[in-house]
Amino acid sequence: MAVTIRDIRAILTCPGQVNLVAVKVETSEPGLFGVGCATFTQRAKAVVTAVDEYLKPLLIGRNVNEIEEIWQLAYGHSYWRNGPVLNNALSGVDEALWDIKGKMAGMPVYELFGGKVRKGVAAYCHCDGNSKEEVLEHLQGYMEQGYRYVRVQQGAYGGMMNGGTMKNGAGPLIDPDTIRFFHVPEGAPQGAYFDPKRYMRKTLEMMDYLRNKAGFEIELVHDVHERLAPIDAVAFAKEMEQYRLFFLEDILSPEQISWFRMVREQCATPLAMGELFNNVNEWMPLIEGRLIDFLRMHLSQIGGLTPAKKLAGAAELFGLRTAWHGPNDITPVGVAAQLHLDLASPAFGIQEFAGFTENEKAVFSGCPEFRDGYLYVNEAPGLGVDIDEEAAAAFPYKVYDDAWLFSRLPDGTSVRS
Amino acid sequence: MAVTIRDIRAILTCPGQVNLVAVKVETSEPGLFGVGCATFTQRAKAVVTAVDEYLKPLLIGRNVNEIEEIWQLAYGHSYWRNGPVLNNALSGVDEALWDIKGKMAGMPVYELFGGKVRKGVAAYCHCDGNSKEEVLEHLQGYMEQGYRYVRVQQGAYGGMMNGGTMKNGAGPLIDPDTIRFFHVPEGAPQGAYFDPKRYMRKTLEMMDYLRNKAGFEIELVHDVHERLAPIDAVAFAKEMEQYRLFFLEDILSPEQISWFRMVREQCATPLAMGELFNNVNEWMPLIEGRLIDFLRMHLSQIGGLTPAKKLAGAAELFGLRTAWHGPNDITPVGVAAQLHLDLASPAFGIQEFAGFTENEKAVFSGCPEFRDGYLYVNEAPGLGVDIDEEAAAAFPYKVYDDAWLFSRLPDGTSVRS
Amino acid sequence: MAVTIRDIRAILTCPGQVNLVAVKVETSEPGLFGVGCATFTQRAKAVVTAVDEYLKPLLIGRNVNEIEEIWQLAYGHSYWRNGPVLNNALSGVDEALWDIKGKMAGMPVYELFGGKVRKGVAAYCHCDGNSKEEVLEHLQGYMEQGYRYVRVQQGAYGGMMNGGTMKNGAGPLIDPDTIRFFHVPEGAPQGAYFDPKRYMRKTLEMMDYLRNKAGFEIELVHDVHERLAPIDAVAFAKEMEQYRLFFLEDILSPEQISWFRMVREQCATPLAMGELFNNVNEWMPLIEGRLIDFLRMHLSQIGGLTPAKKLAGAAELFGLRTAWHGPNDITPVGVAAQLHLDLASPAFGIQEFAGFTENEKAVFSGCPEFRDGYLYVNEAPGLGVDIDEEAAAAFPYKVYDDAWLFSRLPDGTSVRS
Amino acid sequence: MAVTIRDIRAILTCPGQVNLVAVKVETSEPGLFGVGCATFTQRAKAVVTAVDEYLKPLLIGRNVNEIEEIWQLAYGHSYWRNGPVLNNALSGVDEALWDIKGKMAGMPVYELFGGKVRKGVAAYCHCDGNSKEEVLEHLQGYMEQGYRYVRVQQGAYGGMMNGGTMKNGAGPLIDPDTIRFFHVPEGAPQGAYFDPKRYMRKTLEMMDYLRNKAGFEIELVHDVHERLAPIDAVAFAKEMEQYRLFFLEDILSPEQISWFRMVREQCATPLAMGELFNNVNEWMPLIEGRLIDFLRMHLSQIGGLTPAKKLAGAAELFGLRTAWHGPNDITPVGVAAQLHLDLASPAFGIQEFAGFTENEKAVFSGCPEFRDGYLYVNEAPGLGVDIDEEAAAAFPYKVYDDAWLFSRLPDGTSVRS
Repeated sequence: MAVTIRDIRAILTCPGQVNLVAVKVETSEPGLFGVGCATFTQRAKAVVTAVDEYLKPLLIGRNVNEIEEIWQLAYGHSYWRNGPVLNNALSGVDEALWDIKGKMAGMPVYELFGGKVRKGVAAYCHCDGNSKEEVLEHLQGYMEQGYRYVRVQQGAYGGMMNGGTMKNGAGPLIDPDTIRFFHVPEGAPQGAYFDPKRYMRKTLEMMDYLRNKAGFEIELVHDVHERLAPIDAVAFAKEMEQYRLFFLEDILSPEQISWFRMVREQCATPLAMGELFNNVNEWMPLIEGRLIDFLRMHLSQIGGLTPAKKLAGAAELFGLRTAWHGPNDITPVGVAAQLHLDLASPAFGIQEFAGFTENEKAVFSGCPEFRDGYLYVNEAPGLGVDIDEEAAAAFPYKVYDDAWLFSRLPDGTSVRS
Repeated sequence: MAVTIRDIRAILTCPGQVNLVAVKVETSEPGLFGVGCATFTQRAKAVVTAVDEYLKPLLIGRNVNEIEEIWQLAYGHSYWRNGPVLNNALSGVDEALWDIKGKMAGMPVYELFGGKVRKGVAAYCHCDGNSKEEVLEHLQGYMEQGYRYVRVQQGAYGGMMNGGTMKNGAGPLIDPDTIRFFHVPEGAPQGAYFDPKRYMRKTLEMMDYLRNKAGFEIELVHDVHERLAPIDAVAFAKEMEQYRLFFLEDILSPEQISWFRMVREQCATPLAMGELFNNVNEWMPLIEGRLIDFLRMHLSQIGGLTPAKKLAGAAELFGLRTAWHGPNDITPVGVAAQLHLDLASPAFGIQEFAGFTENEKAVFSGCPEFRDGYLYVNEAPGLGVDIDEEAAAAFPYKVYDDAWLFSRLPDGTSVRS
Repeated sequence: MAVTIRDIRAILTCPGQVNLVAVKVETSEPGLFGVGCATFTQRAKAVVTAVDEYLKPLLIGRNVNEIEEIWQLAYGHSYWRNGPVLNNALSGVDEALWDIKGKMAGMPVYELFGGKVRKGVAAYCHCDGNSKEEVLEHLQGYMEQGYRYVRVQQGAYGGMMNGGTMKNGAGPLIDPDTIRFFHVPEGAPQGAYFDPKRYMRKTLEMMDYLRNKAGFEIELVHDVHERLAPIDAVAFAKEMEQYRLFFLEDILSPEQISWFRMVREQCATPLAMGELFNNVNEWMPLIEGRLIDFLRMHLSQIGGLTPAKKLAGAAELFGLRTAWHGPNDITPVGVAAQLHLDLASPAFGIQEFAGFTENEKAVFSGCPEFRDGYLYVNEAPGLGVDIDEEAAAAFPYKVYDDAWLFSRLPDGTSVRS
Repeated sequence: MAVTIRDIRAILTCPGQVNLVAVKVETSEPGLFGVGCATFTQRAKAVVTAVDEYLKPLLIGRNVNEIEEIWQLAYGHSYWRNGPVLNNALSGVDEALWDIKGKMAGMPVYELFGGKVRKGVAAYCHCDGNSKEEVLEHLQGYMEQGYRYVRVQQGAYGGMMNGGTMKNGAGPLIDPDTIRFFHVPEGAPQGAYFDPKRYMRKTLEMMDYLRNKAGFEIELVHDVHERLAPIDAVAFAKEMEQYRLFFLEDILSPEQISWFRMVREQCATPLAMGELFNNVNEWMPLIEGRLIDFLRMHLSQIGGLTPAKKLAGAAELFGLRTAWHGPNDITPVGVAAQLHLDLASPAFGIQEFAGFTENEKAVFSGCPEFRDGYLYVNEAPGLGVDIDEEAAAAFPYKVYDDAWLFSRLPDGTSVRS
């Protein structure tokens, strides 16, 4: 008799900096369950509603083996689809089902994907600093920890100098230094102000400095975080070429992917894109056109392992590589899901990794480990990560009024991401 | 002193066949409020969470006049964006703010968009029947009501013959007639089975019959509802050309828009697409390539009036027309929002309209009216439609286990939409 | 009862350097009127004729609310359309009608466009000098005034060294120095002689000098004014790339826009174009192809606010920005119209601004103000600028025989713009 | 401790019409082994050599879990790759390893691919006849057996009338009727003569006859078998459109795939291609260009399940479907491998199936079963098919001198396939 889904529930917890959402799928088999990542930290509660109110009643009683069938059903069942709330909810179930299948097979999930093509997963970390000297200092620290791929950033994304909060809305700026520095117009709202051109100049200076001091052996990555006007992105990628990045990340907003062709015509800088994608129409033109080099989709954001392994296969056919998005707004089980896929994917390129806090490790057992530049999963069947629901409850959902600083140009115009 | 947002709340109500979501925005000005449509009926509660837990705290205290600023802020604030849950929530606020602005100006919203370029909005209705004879009979009924544009369909979408429910999941089919008719494999799941090729043949027969009996003066529309394989869609559009449709709707799934070019190379059938779109990357290639003729986005699904009026402007530049999606899973205030835009858009083509139930009219006052083929808004300031929250509460949210029949090919494969 | 158009009249005045044309639309409501800009200084009287002889009789008695309807009607009514005389006339009416609508709503016009997305409008000014040293000196002066965006030019457009008038036609050059410098052929006509290659060399020298002396923080713009052969424009844009312009303006004549693709393939210099456009076929290929970065249409030249706001919406969809043309041949009401649109447009980039003379301020009340790099409109309903017809009459139309210097290559060949 | 490869051997057997090659992989675990298909019937012994002399020594001792690693290693190890001998050898090992992994997991292989998305696999069979009347008669027979998809062919491929053998080389034709019919030149060699234009005419006649007699409900397929000149293929596909084929197979030779675009521009006939492909460069342009609708690769010919599941994933992204090549020169284990993939692939379209002989069933236990139009695998772990090596030995390799008739045009020119 088929093993079926007995219960599904979303678990909201905040053991680190941000709210996380995990999904637990329990089965008709006592003791057999799976855990998946459904973290959309900026709208975590909406994901919980999607899981508990919609996916749970739809899926209870279904055969846990039929992951692809369940994925297609849940994806199409809402009619409108391809959004972050629903895709994350779907991912929670999808990853949990792969976890269950691995446990039923007595195998780590990477075995179901064809087995290991590498033994450890090379990772890059994020390294920032308030000055180029500080970035170098931190870079050297990460290199000592074993990182051979590092993402370097001076200031916050976009080189922001100011972190005014958005709390209480659109009142006037309160920081007189910011006003002076950016020459904002009278009555400009609060926000994380930055000047795109200044950011470009400062970053080129930083890259020059880092390559002079740290050489070209260390693989460097840089993330524009989609904050440039398209033509500035073209010029910036072109100027960055000389610093031989491992890749340049998110130079364009997902709304402006048509500009990638222009970037491609002007420089050979390796390009990475995808963390904000949730839709086949966002990545297909870039894949078909071979307009980016690294696919950086956020696994839970595109609906979990089921679509991601198809993308990893397509990457291989098109000569692209994967670099799945791996920040801190992802559960350890979500990190493990990425790594299982990485271990089995010939087209793997690199894995972003942000580490785990002690509290996260208290909630999630079996977390992947980082040693000398590589990430390793434990070798337990399934994804290998469990959630302690009692411990999770000890770190309840937090409301962050300033969870996401909204970027603004010097004249106060809002800039997405 | 600026008028600010005092409160935002989502209102869930089910006065007709499906759950509706409205959003009410109250202001610092006593008695001044706005109402907008946020209906994503298939995941209504997730929209409510998005409004109440996220948009409300983000937007309270902001200047009600700054609609575009609020739209950009709310759109980008979740970082991941462009999905149906968040876009619908955003639409609720956006339309309510336009309603408020109209009231503050003492003008119907169409005036803010440049004023009327037509006095009534031509509408098409949906007309189906179990046989071509029945479709003709119903068509004649609609024509008598004044409709000069009618969407004709034999059977349900895809010409489905069977309406097995998905309740309780993946059990075996229970209807022996369906099993015999479709020759489904052993153990095939419940679902709304249909045979794409049979649907194509039957629809061509129906069109032939209707054109013979009702002539070519009545404007006919047909909706494929995205249920064909791409190459079959090409062939079908080509064969339909002879029946001179006003347009052929949704011949391809939103995941397969790259096939539109092939359709275009083979026939001159006017094409309409868009109700499932929520992302600029879904519509831009079709607009830029002039690969469809009618933009059919669902206003709340793309985030409300603010993005829709930009699309209406772009349609004019590209020689396209609008035919906003207007089924019954939209509040009367959402219908009114479409009509205000239609009244002011040179590129308007046609408006889909599904009527209002008596209960809907009890909950929503000021509903648009249909007379002799045209829709008319009332001429009150704003959008002109109010919601009676007490009446709304009398029609509480309903759980529909079989809210959306999942389509399946004869071999049981799931087909989206 | 609808408010209707009672009278329309063009007002010709010359309070500054050039003739200006405003249009006043009076309504059936006593005291309710609007003002718009219709300035085509080179053919000012033809615009007056178009307004008074054609638009006035066509439009009197029409509903002032129906701006879009009136625009479409007036645009198509001449059958032959899309020319500067008729578009400017139309703009005068169109802007006046938006002014009226704002007044009727009790709102500044930017509110009708969706409200402010920024509080001030960043502006650039024009800065020239006879030598690079003089340009630098002037540049520093503008920076002290608060300008953070400046357009730099050595000599007149094209780097012209000579300002011979065209009065009395094609007589021989009168300035012996010019003759010697340019090696003109015997009997060459009068004109504004310039040498394109010399201009290119001198401008690159100037840019090098300015970037060395003033650094890269000041945003610089340069205007080719369409005076180069297409392949020279490609080479020039490429060489200018290193100076990181904010944009390079009008590198090609409107007759040679097909060359933009070649420019694009060779460099990442931001490109601006549009002041000479009056036709959808001039801008659509550039927009669709993402071949320019800044749309610089002259609002009155394309017919006013109604088409301009559609373009601003399209700019957003395509990742382009606006930089509406703002020289001194525009009335203050025309400047205000631009600013209202700028304040509400997410795709705003920068605004050209040439200041107002004291006489202009005497004629036009409510002029926008420049403070610390930003332009601000007054917050009165409508566009906020009124015309004092008596004062206007005090600055009557002037005939300038040398109103527009005709450029000539060294061999005397005429060059447009 | 890891389970490793203990032995690999190719098994050559001829229980049906043609020589088959299976590969057995034995492991360090007693009783644990896998079987895969490596059938390249035309060069069967070369495959045996490739397995026994090259893959066996390379792979013994390796971890059976690392299928992808082994695939990549074996594929690249020969440096020259992508040919039928080596790909078939590799497929034998690859499918055997998936068989082993399924057994280790205690699951049918389709479970490792994500589980069933359908319960049975719709199949089409090949139906020919010497006249259209005979084709119809046979077609009706197949329909009675439950086939709802049938490939129809009058005469042999290319509509050949003559089956002269090539034995003894290029001697003169021996059948005087054939000589007369085709007007062959004096001294023309033996061969399977056919006239392409006559074939086209006869096939169109047949299709017309079949559609008139059997209607449009039965799904018909036709196979050109790559025997037409490119422009004739274009014309033929276009004329066939009216008969609404399920697909038209192999209209172009694999050397002439660039002509597919021209076919696409002229008709909407669904196209299938792929059985002769062994190289990513053969299928990528067709996939990227959406130039065919059905991928018909021969699984063992492209290297087994590992590459095929990536192609099935890519098919889904591009809106294509699979129709894996399934003739009689494939072992039952090879058929099972296809079916396991079909059961789990959303992009499955149809499966070709040629049945099993009694002798094949004697050699291979656990053969898939055909019932009422669908194929079903047994539900045993792994691929579910075993080989009885003793029984296999009872059907030794046969030398067929006339194994593959070489086609010739009327003038004696040889035509591939």
